[in-house]
Parts: sequence; C-alpha cells; structure tokens
Amino acid sequence: MTTTLWRNARLATMAGDQPWGWIENGALVAEDERIVWVGAEADLPPELKRATGTVTDLGGACVTPGLIDCHTHLVYGGMRSREFELRLQGASYEEIARAGGGIRSTVAATRAASEDELYALALKRLQPLLAEGVTTIEIKSGYGLNLETEARCLHVARHLQLTQPVTVRTTFLGAHAVPPEFEGRQPDYVDAVCAWMPALKAQGLVDAVDAFCEGIGFTPAQTRQVFEAARALELPVKLHAEQLSDQGGTQLACEFGALSCDHLEHLSPEGVAAMARSGTVAVLLPGAYYFLRETKLPPIAALREAGVPMALSTDHNPGTSPTLSLLLMLNMACTLFRLTPEEALRGVTVHAAQALGLAGEVGVLQAGARADFCVWDIAHPNELAYFFGRNPLLQVVRGGQVTAVFSDPQGVAA
Amino acid sequence: MTTTLWRNARLATMAGDQPWGWIENGALVAEDERIVWVGAEADLPPELKRATGTVTDLGGACVTPGLIDCHTHLVYGGMRSREFELRLQGASYEEIARAGGGIRSTVAATRAASEDELYALALKRLQPLLAEGVTTIEIKSGYGLNLETEARCLHVARHLQLTQPVTVRTTFLGAHAVPPEFEGRQPDYVDAVCAWMPALKAQGLVDAVDAFCEGIGFTPAQTRQVFEAARALELPVKLHAEQLSDQGGTQLACEFGALSCDHLEHLSPEGVAAMARSGTVAVLLPGAYYFLRETKLPPIAALREAGVPMALSTDHNPGTSPTLSLLLMLNMACTLFRLTPEEALRGVTVHAAQALGLAGEVGVLQAGARADFCVWDIAHPNELAYFFGRNPLLQVVRGGQVTAVFSDPQGVAA
Ligand SMILES: [Zn+2]
Ligand SMILES: [Zn+2]
Repeated sequence: MTTTLWRNARLATMAGDQPWGWIENGALVAEDERIVWVGAEADLPPELKRATGTVTDLGGACVTPGLIDCHTHLVYGGMRSREFELRLQGASYEEIARAGGGIRSTVAATRAASEDELYALALKRLQPLLAEGVTTIEIKSGYGLNLETEARCLHVARHLQLTQPVTVRTTFLGAHAVPPEFEGRQPDYVDAVCAWMPALKAQGLVDAVDAFCEGIGFTPAQTRQVFEAARALELPVKLHAEQLSDQGGTQLACEFGALSCDHLEHLSPEGVAAMARSGTVAVLLPGAYYFLRETKLPPIAALREAGVPMALSTDHNPGTSPTLSLLLMLNMACTLFRLTPEEALRGVTVHAAQALGLAGEVGVLQAGARADFCVWDIAHPNELAYFFGRNPLLQVVRGGQVTAVFSDPQGVAA
Repeated sequence: MTTTLWRNARLATMAGDQPWGWIENGALVAEDERIVWVGAEADLPPELKRATGTVTDLGGACVTPGLIDCHTHLVYGGMRSREFELRLQGASYEEIARAGGGIRSTVAATRAASEDELYALALKRLQPLLAEGVTTIEIKSGYGLNLETEARCLHVARHLQLTQPVTVRTTFLGAHAVPPEFEGRQPDYVDAVCAWMPALKAQGLVDAVDAFCEGIGFTPAQTRQVFEAARALELPVKLHAEQLSDQGGTQLACEFGALSCDHLEHLSPEGVAAMARSGTVAVLLPGAYYFLRETKLPPIAALREAGVPMALSTDHNPGTSPTLSLLLMLNMACTLFRLTPEEALRGVTVHAAQALGLAGEVGVLQAGARADFCVWDIAHPNELAYFFGRNPLLQVVRGGQVTAVFSDPQGVAA
C-alpha cells in the first residue's frame, strides 16, 4: 500500500456545509487510489504522517475535486460544421437536408465508421476535456440506432477508460431518434430498443438508460416503455426532459427514481416538486441553450428553493452543443442561468457525481472517495466561473496518481 | 537571407475573391520574415524552389494567417471575480462598491502595482491567446488614468513584444473613465489626457488613441477634443462607440478617419453610412455582449450591405469581458451575431489587421506580408467557428520562424 500526502493546499472539498467546503492550509492523504484523510494541515494525525511515503508540497495552490462531465454524446462519426455554415449563410432546412445535414447525417456517418475510427474521433474530443481536469465522464450512445452500432459506440466509450486517465459511465440512448429504416414505425422502433437492452447489458456496456422525451422525440408512453425495460434489468434511468416543451417527462422519470433529468428549460412546478421528492438531479446544459439561442430559462430559482441538486455538463454533441470545454459551461451557467460560481462548481463535481450514481465516490474531497483532484493556478475557485475561455489547470491526480502536469497553466508547449 | 518553403498545405489565405481565399494543394515561400510567394504548389516557380533552404511538408494541414486580437485591455492590476460572485449572490451595487468593486477597484490595483507585477499579470493573460495562434495584439491603456500609470501600462505592452512571439500595437485610452481625483471635474480630466499625449508619444508608447464615448463615459464634444489632440500629433484614432446608446460618436470618429469604431450595438444608419464612406472598420465584441447579457444586436446586415469591414476581438477586460479565447469569439460572433464562419475568420485576420492600420502587413497570406501563420488540425476552416471551447492549433509560425509546436492539438502535456 502506498500512502501519499499532499500538503500546503487550499482545498475546495465540496463536502460539508462551509461555502465551497473550503479548507485553508489544507492537506490530503491517499492510500493507493482512495482518500483516507482531508483537513487542515495542523490537524494531520501523527500516525498518518509517519506512514506517508511521498509528500507533495502544492505551494498554496487551489485544489478541487476532479471535474465530472455528466452528459455527453462523445462517440459519433462525421462533422456538422458545414451544416452550421450553411445555416448562417441563410440556407433553408431543405437545402441543408439535401446537403446531408441533421442528425441523420450523423447516424449515417456513425454507422459507416469502424470501431477504430470512432475511437480515434472520440479520443480527440476527450483530450481537451481531460486537459481541463475532467476525471469522470458520462458517454451516451444514440447515433447508431441499431443494435450493432449502438454496441460499437458503447464499446468505444468503455475502451476510452482503458487507455485514458478517466472514469467512463456509459448510457444507452437508443431512444434518441427514429432511424430511417423505422420511419413511420416509431412504436416498432421502441420495441426494438427495449429488445436490444438485455444483450447490451449482458455485454457489460450499459450503466444507465436514457431517452429523448419530446414532441420531436419520443412520447411519455414510449419513454415509460423504455424505462420499464430498464427497470426489469435493474438499470437506473435518466431523461432528456422538457427541453423544447413541457411533456411531463420529468414526473414520469421521477416515478422510476431517475438519477437525473436533463435540459429542463420548460420544467413545470409539478416537475420541480417531483424531482425534490425523488432526489433526482437537474442537469443543466447551458451550451445547448446558448448554441440554439433559446430564450426560455430553466426554473433555477424554483429548483434552488426546492433543494434539487443542480449539475452542469457540456452536452457535447455535433448538432446542438459542439463544445469541448466544461470550464466554459461554468461561466455560461453563471452568465446565462444566474447560478452562483459555487453552484456552478458543485454542478461539475458533487452534483454531477450524484447524477451518475457516484455520490461519495467522486466529485468530493473526503475520506472514502477516490483521490481524483485538480490543482489550479488560481487565487480562488470563483475564478473558474468568472473567466471564459481560460484554463488555469496545473496538475491532475487520478486515483492517487499524477496523470497530467501542465508546465504552463494555459497549455503553451515549447 | 533564408528562403523557407512550406508545402502540402490547404491555405485559407483570406486574400483575393475566393471564399476564404482558398488554395487547395498550396505552398508558401518566405524570405526571412516576409512571404514572397503563395499559390498552388503546382505553380511554384522553379527558381524559388531551387533557392529554398528548408522545406516543411505540412501533411495537408489547414493554414490560416496568424490571428489578430485587435481590441484588448490586457494590462491591469487585480481581479474582479469576487465582484462577479457577489453580483450572482444578489448583492446590490452599493454592497459591491463597498466591497471595492467596479472599475475604480481596477484603477486602484493598477496604480498600486509595479511594472514587473503588471508585466507578470499581462503575460499570464497573453499566454492563452498565443496558445490559440494570436500573432498580433492590440493593447490599450486606460486603467492608470494618470500620466505615470498610463505610461507604465503602455511600457508593459511594449515589453511583451520584446519577450514574446507577438506583434503589439499600443493604444492610449486615457479617456476611459474619470479617476477619483478628478471627480466632478471631467473637463479638467479631458484637458489632462490631451496634455499627457505628447509626452507619451515622444516616449514611443502610442500607436493610436481611443476614447469611451458614452452616457457613462465621455461626451462627443470631449471625444472631439481628444481626437484633435491626437490629430495634432498625427496619431490615428479609434473609438468605443454606441455600446449602450447612440451618441453619434461613430460619425465623429469617421470625420477623423478613425481606423475603427468598436462595440456598435446602438449604431444608427447614419453611423453605418459614415463608416462606409471613411473606410472605418467595425470591431464587434461578442464577449462583452454575452457577458453583459445585452439584447440589442449590432446592425450586422446593414454593415454587411454597406461593405463595412467587420473585425472581431476579445475585448479582454476585467469588468465586462474576462475572456482569454479569441477562437471562442468566432463562435459567439456566429451564434449571437449571425456572422458566417468566413466573416468571423476575416474578423480576426484581414479585417482585424485593417483595424490596426496593418492591412497587407499581417492578417493575410500573400506576397509582401509578414510570414505569420497558424497550422490547424482541422479539415475545413469553418470548424474554427463551429466548435466552442476547442483549440485545434498545431503550430505557429511568426516572421518565418516556428514559435510554437503543440505535440497534441489540445495542449495536453505529459
Ligand atoms: Zn443530450
Ligand atoms: Zn474595450
């Protein structure tokens, strides 16, 4: 067993009742990959100090839990920048469709890509997230829309955890859109999605099940069917809910004890109450709100008042949120949604962990949690939300091991 | 003389009438720090090929001119993240003022900082911009507001050019705000600003003169006084114009042949016409628009129709635009202002050069220009605007010399 001590740190533990879980003059001890002690350095137990192998002086730097991006669609083929350009040049939806735009183009490109190709593309998207201190990420399927391709995409997500210093949680999102071969047969497609689930689970590819409950997506009744299939397999659920209209999907998801409901711009008071009762996390996605130029804000004040934990994520996807910066989401959550900087940081640490069913395991600096943390070149954690388009990361520790050191906080190489 | 050839490149030259000034299978030849030839590789003159010392194969990568950030307030003391946090916690303006917020706090911190301290702070802000491919930057004074501190800040700006691979253009912005010692004596302060100008120019610290013409800034008559002092010294002018209201400052600036008018959310049709006549560049600042949650858009369609060149910049400053990503401004210009991706890239290259009086010198890949360019890990330049929070820079060449190589496009270090 290796005992490691980090000292002379200013810790935003995100644990306990203090703002930011703040500990000035803090220290942290890990045994192998777990934190065994966090506190003020003056209180460090002598027996722990004696047992310590390596001691790292952090020079008073600010430390937070490793960041968690709890809602991404990271694995897909193709690129939608041409569609973005066409739209800004004033092209009509028909012209864009003719030029091969829209989600169908992503599905076609994903189906056409080999597992190696999908892995290479996803890795390239993962790297900037890791360079900002992400140590845990959720990755959804949903661009394959047939059993073989959904499995391939989930395999890629699992593979990323094997090669990169990151914990990956996979989510099966077969009910993302109806593929062309099921056009006009939506109920049959929902049956198929439910039928694929046991095989995907048996291959160890599914940590949770998600659906897109929306006028342009799946109905609440179809969502219920998907959730019942998930429950039969004892898989937790989450939902793309109330993004463009109030479908009542949130209340449905809360019936199933959903880990999270995500987007929520059109969430009703009844939906807020249901989330509070079921302990479901509200995952806010300001990047999609910004990119789609939405004007209807999620009911932040009501969520706050009801005590619903709020998480934040990039929602990285090629159609509605082509962002690869989780730090930028902190600023967007503050600027656009009026979260406080502390709420924003909780949203990518402790509450994001809860949205993934990993409360106490990651997203917090306390005994028992994984020793996943970031060392930042900042005077105060509110800087992470104040700046936009700046990355002050100095160092990443995952499972007690240093996985990245940035010689220069902004990543300027030789 | 050193002759260098870069070949096997896909060039967005931003010159000529082709979209993006595009050259597939392109090559570029520099003699020392100047470009002497750009074109399709097949057309490369044999005598140039024979004269070449170093040949670099760019492997089909996409090349653009080095980026230009043409409007920044990069040199200042202090930090305003606490003020940002207080505001989001619901503090009143009085509480924020009591906590030492607002521009006065930045002026006080700037005055209190030594030249070395200001240099270290500005360097830290410059680094992420350089890591995105910025090779030319404009830096304004305006947080000193007395002769000594304004000079110190402009010195720091000049010093950055000596130590970093970047061309710096300095702008004297004494007429940014009225300092406390001139409270209630705004006309006296304008007299002082005009009186300091010859000394600052004599020290070689001023490339242009700027003012903040606004209800909460300086009147058009005061702006005229500043511009007349500039004209007497043969210094070009630019203006913070029509950001919060239509003051007619743009028409005034155009009378003086201003290089640029900046912000322009409340620009009138008369202002657009004046800019078209005087060849003044419209510098759009979507970061400030975003951060201030403005809703009034600058008149993009009218500017486009009148043929007014549009530039883009970070407007980096601690109060209204704490961003350090020029690439993010491309996406914000497209998403929020509906520029096309090509207009956005012109805005940080050829038009930004024009806004600094450097047309033909930088911001374009053509014979006679400086060999300042960026090599990107992208398939098409529209990707630079489509993604937000992603940096695909591979390599920077400035004055014909490689100044930065990124082993990994996203800046992940060991
Ligand atoms: Zn999503
Ligand atoms: Zn400005």
